[in-house]
Amino acid sequence: MIAVDWGTSSFRAYRVAADGAVLERRSAPLGIMQIEGGRFAQALDSQVQDWLAAGEAPVVMCGMIGSRQGWKEAPYVACPAAPEDIAQHLVEVTWGARRRAWLAPGLSSRDEGGVPDVMRGEETQLLGVLDELPPAAWICLPGTHSKWVEIRGGKIARFRTHMTGEVFAVMKAHSILGRMMPDAALDAHWFGAGVQRARAAGGMLHHLFGVRARGLFGELPEAGASSYLSGILIGHELLSIPDSAQAGVYLLGSPELERLYRRALEQLGRPSVSLDPDAAVRGLIRLARGLPRE
Amino acid sequence: MIAVDWGTSSFRAYRVAADGAVLERRSAPLGIMQIEGGRFAQALDSQVQDWLAAGEAPVVMCGMIGSRQGWKEAPYVACPAAPEDIAQHLVEVTWGARRRAWLAPGLSSRDEGGVPDVMRGEETQLLGVLDELPPAAWICLPGTHSKWVEIRGGKIARFRTHMTGEVFAVMKAHSILGRMMPDAALDAHWFGAGVQRARAAGGMLHHLFGVRARGLFGELPEAGASSYLSGILIGHELLSIPDSAQAGVYLLGSPELERLYRRALEQLGRPSVSLDPDAAVRGLIRLARGLPRE
Repeated sequence: MIAVDWGTSSFRAYRVAADGAVLERRSAPLGIMQIEGGRFAQALDSQVQDWLAAGEAPVVMCGMIGSRQGWKEAPYVACPAAPEDIAQHLVEVTWGARRRAWLAPGLSSRDEGGVPDVMRGEETQLLGVLDELPPAAWICLPGTHSKWVEIRGGKIARFRTHMTGEVFAVMKAHSILGRMMPDAALDAHWFGAGVQRARAAGGMLHHLFGVRARGLFGELPEAGASSYLSGILIGHELLSIPDSAQAGVYLLGSPELERLYRRALEQLGRPSVSLDPDAAVRGLIRLARGLPRE
Repeated sequence: MIAVDWGTSSFRAYRVAADGAVLERRSAPLGIMQIEGGRFAQALDSQVQDWLAAGEAPVVMCGMIGSRQGWKEAPYVACPAAPEDIAQHLVEVTWGARRRAWLAPGLSSRDEGGVPDVMRGEETQLLGVLDELPPAAWICLPGTHSKWVEIRGGKIARFRTHMTGEVFAVMKAHSILGRMMPDAALDAHWFGAGVQRARAAGGMLHHLFGVRARGLFGELPEAGASSYLSGILIGHELLSIPDSAQAGVYLLGSPELERLYRRALEQLGRPSVSLDPDAAVRGLIRLARGLPRE
């Protein structure tokens, strides 16, 4: 089969053997935002023409390629959702001479206040790790829009998204805080100070201003400012998760973000278990296995 | 005297009679960021040459003109600060043929965690309203960097800054939330829904993502999105203020912001009293009265 994880800013394809072994990987900066005029079929052909010509099938894709801005919309499936519910809502696209592919749907959830929430791409990563988890668990997928997902009875019961990564990026690039923030490696001390700060009185909007004031007073080195801001935001995210997630959590994300979140969780006295970040391809394989044989 | 409120983006000057009556007002988009090469004296001359030539004195200024980026730095005075403490730390600048002016210092404060905080400009507004307040009171000065100030024993005891206005502006202009946000008049319903949302579980970073998700699901009209975001942020600010400020608060800000905050405070069941937003000029007059006669 061909597994494709196709997001807003990147394209990743995997050629997978019948036994699930990944034979070959390709990636390109061909996110859906980089594709003009809806030429998704051409973009896919340009990346995996040889695999397709060799008759590799099926082609299963996840991520923003299945959004309204992508190739074709695969509508959100409402939580609680079992793996079968996701598999049953794959959406087919066809092109060229009898070429076809399947797009994974996103998931939606509603919180206690009835406010909707959405994910697209993460549902497939979750499918890739579900078998390793106990029947009841919380998984955190850190990122631009960090997700906290509750698994219950083997289903994706509900989830919450936090804008942590995007608020960090936007504040660093466009607010007064960014003026004092050179790009710098993680400063563990100041990251920890930020996480600690999130527990103080005053709320996040006050803690954000403290980044500037500490800088003005020479009490925060420029090289630590970005880590301090990151710690404040991640700290606030972690302090707002449901009580049932406090006992322990599984982390599924890029090594860099996984490291930050693990560190912050440790500091707050919460155990975490890290999952293989390459979960999307395993989720796509799982979806492929549920498809009818051709 | 000549009173000047000179901030980052605007210049406001007042010619004031001996009895405190404002005889004339002038304003220009000549904030300190618009002045090149430190030509502050020339800028001041260009605006009030005739008043100076008529011998009007003293000239007292407040705002960012007294910052490190301004004409000359008038260092922060630490809270608790009495009106006399501020008056004693006016910094003199001179130019041309025996021309002189005084710059008001900013204030600094430290919160429970020892983290510093600063204000510059607001201290003069506070001087302008102090006589109208009881000896113990909380004042909220909404803005880009919203201030909550505790008055105790007639002194400015301590304060906290919240980045509410800047986070709103930056998220609207640069985050994914802004894509669905045309400039629109205040939508009272959606502003109230945002304030209400701030009380829900999940924290601010989750509530921010809800703006997007509600939009995606057609459950938040585009014309209401900006008001909803504003309500969420102001709601979070109001929910994080100290308990001692919950009983009632004085509001000192532009009519537009004062209206938003008053509405949000009302919704949270907290009484507020609005103060005359033209307090800076009264504070400058108070500072002028403490200067030695020439």
